[in-house]
Order: sequence, then structure tokens, then C-alpha cells
Amino acid sequence: MRIAVLGGGAMGMLYASMLASCHDVVVMDRNAAKVEAIKSRGITLEEQDGTLVTAHPGAAQMGEPVKPADLVLVFVKAMGTREALEKCRALIGEHTLLLTLQNGGGHEDVLSQFVPMQRILLGTTQHNASVREDGRVFHGGSGQTVIGSPVGEHEQAEKVAIAFEAAGICTVASRNVRETIWRKLMTNVSLSALTGVFQMPMGFVSDSASAWRLCEMLVREACAVAAADGVVFDPQEKIEEVHQVAVKGPRGITSICADLMHGRMTEVDTISGSVVRAAARLHVPAPHHEMMVLLIHAMEDKNRETGK
Amino acid sequence: MRIAVLGGGAMGMLYASMLASCHDVVVMDRNAAKVEAIKSRGITLEEQDGTLVTAHPGAAQMGEPVKPADLVLVFVKAMGTREALEKCRALIGEHTLLLTLQNGGGHEDVLSQFVPMQRILLGTTQHNASVREDGRVFHGGSGQTVIGSPVGEHEQAEKVAIAFEAAGICTVASRNVRETIWRKLMTNVSLSALTGVFQMPMGFVSDSASAWRLCEMLVREACAVAAADGVVFDPQEKIEEVHQVAVKGPRGITSICADLMHGRMTEVDTISGSVVRAAARLHVPAPHHEMMVLLIHAMEDKNRETGK
Repeated sequence: MRIAVLGGGAMGMLYASMLASCHDVVVMDRNAAKVEAIKSRGITLEEQDGTLVTAHPGAAQMGEPVKPADLVLVFVKAMGTREALEKCRALIGEHTLLLTLQNGGGHEDVLSQFVPMQRILLGTTQHNASVREDGRVFHGGSGQTVIGSPVGEHEQAEKVAIAFEAAGICTVASRNVRETIWRKLMTNVSLSALTGVFQMPMGFVSDSASAWRLCEMLVREACAVAAADGVVFDPQEKIEEVHQVAVKGPRGITSICADLMHGRMTEVDTISGSVVRAAARLHVPAPHHEMMVLLIHAMEDKNRETGK
Repeated sequence: MRIAVLGGGAMGMLYASMLASCHDVVVMDRNAAKVEAIKSRGITLEEQDGTLVTAHPGAAQMGEPVKPADLVLVFVKAMGTREALEKCRALIGEHTLLLTLQNGGGHEDVLSQFVPMQRILLGTTQHNASVREDGRVFHGGSGQTVIGSPVGEHEQAEKVAIAFEAAGICTVASRNVRETIWRKLMTNVSLSALTGVFQMPMGFVSDSASAWRLCEMLVREACAVAAADGVVFDPQEKIEEVHQVAVKGPRGITSICADLMHGRMTEVDTISGSVVRAAARLHVPAPHHEMMVLLIHAMEDKNRETGK
């Protein structure tokens, strides 16, 4: 399969190096130096046991002329998806599938501006990765990749799952991928968003009675929006699951918190923001998530104003 | 008039010293040292032009046996109102009036546990005061005191206004004191609460597009609750007024922000919390103010956890 990976961040490089073992893979990045580095030295993956494996996928700068791919795997930061796809339109042929494993939800809103919904695949991954100072990628955690079509094109999902499995990536083609995405969102839109607002680790949210009440509110409201979207969860069960995440990793810092700590823009628009947009589409209220989006954007503004 | 001032903080001492010029005034405080200081040295008021005036009201520790007063003026921190009144029940005779000029709203919920609503007066003040390091009170700003009965006992309000005027305190007896209180709440529940959450001065709220959208949301929601309470404002007009406050005092720090900065408990329960309770009583939603109360309480918890 000819696969283009959009975005040479940690996750993009991880998937590109795994898929390169048996597919024709090209990594697309906007940074010329990064593209050159991948071309000349490949991508070296550092496993948790210290094993180093170097893969040699292709690489090209976004905007360079490229041939259409069978599959475009989108791994840029969510706020950069539209721009990346615009620069890489040449990758999208008549039959090209677009797959996103990006954090959050609602990515199909952007992808569907480039291909019909029938050629979009959504998914989640339990893999995680981070870039080492020397450019190596540390493979910090493994697990299942779940992919599926938002409009029932299950064969497309199965085809990609088989290609991923061939490259040693444990993958499930799900007939209910929206449930998988909502399930993963629950923790991100509650615990993760709140650690960002308070600039405190996950344990604080479960320890502070008031922070925990906020967390419960956010899970309940997200469950109500999910239910309107046809994905019914028991809110109390979801609250208990989120509680377990906080209790098991009290010192854990989530991505929104880390982004704010380092003065970066957050992905809140595709995390809490995806609940707000789903709520608007489904005509149900989501005042608490609406407030979370604005609170976190205001904290980005605060970082800019205080020069962080 | 025999007047007891509950709470020897800056505002309590200010009013006690002004009223002492022509009334029998006693300051009640829970701190024995403060009571002794007032007894022995009186209260010295420092005006903005540097003038010093010393008044000698009586003083007693809360809990000490005292005679009933004609008027009890409540100036303790809102979260201490119930305890203070319990300790000072002896002040409350058959005809004693209770007047609160405390910040925020909904104080009648507590006062009405001690006297019938007919003997409660609510109000606002434009005076402000702060305690100097040497115990002197700096009189930082003057203006109108507005008082009124929440249940139409206008004569009671007029009687107290006349007594205040006799002591040189510019006072209006209002037939619509609830409107006055809602009007003052608008800035406190939006701008003040947000400066607390962001730990930034007022100018940040008007400068950051996201913080300002939150501010507008909070004013709009408070206007809807006020309307359900029979006090109708034009939300756009209130938003413009709050904007002017921020624009004219961009470096201003509000009480919630200052309390959090210094690791103190805030009065959010009688500020944003009064909107939440009014909304519950009137069966209208107030999800944004509900969240503000919890956010600020969680920040108090964060201060405790980080040892601030």
C-alpha cells in the first residue's frame, strides 16, 4: 500500500517507521530540515527495553509534487489539519482514503472538505511516543489501534486494518468507531481539560471536592451530547472510569496542561471543542464545555501576555 | 440610635467611626486584641487628603453579654455572618433591625434565620477602606450608601437613612434595593470572578477575546436570572458598563483575585454563588455561574495543596 503520513511529529514518525516495514511510506512535513534528516538518517525508534530500530521511509516537504497515495494518515496537530491537506492535495487521488488517529473528535468536519465521507476513516490509538533530544522517537506505550468508517463503509476499514496488521500494528476494524472516539473523549474533555485550567496534575482533580464536581459535570454533559449522537453511556460508569485514571496516575500531566505549561497552543478545539460542535449540530446544550474551551483559550492568551 | 457594628475589619471600623459622631455605637469583633485596641486607642481614620480623625465607639468581643441594639450593621466576611450573629444573639431584641452592606447578594437568606424579613435591610456602599499596617483605617473612597427593605418596609429604610445622614453618611433609602444589588453584582460576578480565575488584572479580561466572551456570557446569564427575579436590565448595556470598568482600570485587582493571590478564602459564594442560588429558587439555569463557583473553590483548594 502506498501510504503518506501527514506530520513528522512523534506519532507520525512512529507510525511511518512501523508501516515502512512492508509498505511504500512517505512522511510529509512542513519543516525542510526534518524532511532532510529523515531522508538521510531514517527514523530511529527506541523501544521501552532500549532496543533501537531504524526505518527508512520516504520523506517530502509539504507542497512538493508527490504522487497520489492509497491512504493518507493524518497526524499533524489538529489546528494544522486543513492547511496540511491543502498543501498536500496532490496526495489525494480518486480512491485515496483519509485516516485520522488524532486526539479528540470531529476531525471528519475538516477531512470531508477534501474527500467524501465514504473515504474517511476515524480511529484511536493506544500507542504513544515522544521525540528525544537527538531526534530519535521513544515508543513509550503500545496497544490497540481502532479504525472505522463514520458512515458504515466497513470494508475500507478492514482493508486498512489488514495493511496495518501486516506491519505488526495491532489493529481492529470497528463497526462502531464513533463510540470508541466518544469513550476516549470522556477523559480528555474532563480530566485533561481541567488539569489544563488548574495547571495541576490529575491527582488534584480527584482530591479537590470542587474540581471533582466540575469533572463529574463535564462527564455528565459529554454523555448527554454523546447520547444525542446515538452513543449511549452510563454517566456514572464513565465518571468512575475517569476517577480511576486520576487515582492511578495522580502525578500525570495531560497534553493540554503540558501545552499551557510550555506556552504552546493547545488542542482544546478538537477536544472540548468537539463536544461543543456536536452539541450545536444535535441541538443540545453544552454550556460547561463551551466555557472550558474559552477558559483554555484565555489561558493561551495569558501565556502570550505574560511572555510565557 | 444604638448601633452595633458586626466585624471590626476596614469597612466595619469605617462605618463605626463615622456613626460614632452622633450615635451610641459598639463594634463587635471576635478578636480580643482588636477589641482592646479600639477600647484603648479608638479608631483613627485617615482621609485621602491625609487628615486624621479619631473616634471612640464602644467595643466588645463577640459572645460577651451586650444589650440589644436598635440596628445591627453586618460587616463581617460573608462566610462568617451566621456564626457572628449566633454569637451576638443578645444584640437582637424585639425591634432590632439587621442591615447588611456586605458585598454580593442573597445575604437575607442568612439574616432571615435571626429576624423576620420585615426587619432586614439590604444595601450597597460606594465607600471603600483598607487597614493600614499600624491599625489605622485608610478611607480610600466615598460615595452613596443605598439601603432598602426587600419586602417593602420602606419606613424602616428611611429611619436608618436619616440616622446615617445625621452622621454625615450620604444615604438613600431605595424602594428598589434589589435592583441596586443586582446592578452592583453584574461587575462582581463577571469581571471580578474572572480576574480571580485567571489571576490577572481587569485589563486582561477586556483584552483577551476569549476571556471577554466569558465575561459577556456571565453578564448575560446574570441578567437572565435578575429578569426572572423581576429586575430587568438590557444585557448589552450591562456588558458595556462592565467593559468600561475594565477599560478604565486595566491594572485593577478585584477582591476575589486578591484573596486567591494571598491564599485566603474568597467570598465567591455570596458573589457568583448568589446568582446560582437565585437561579435555583427561580427555576432558571445558571450553568456558567455554577462553574465559576466551583472553579474558584478549586483554586482555593489548589492554594492549600501548594501551600500558598
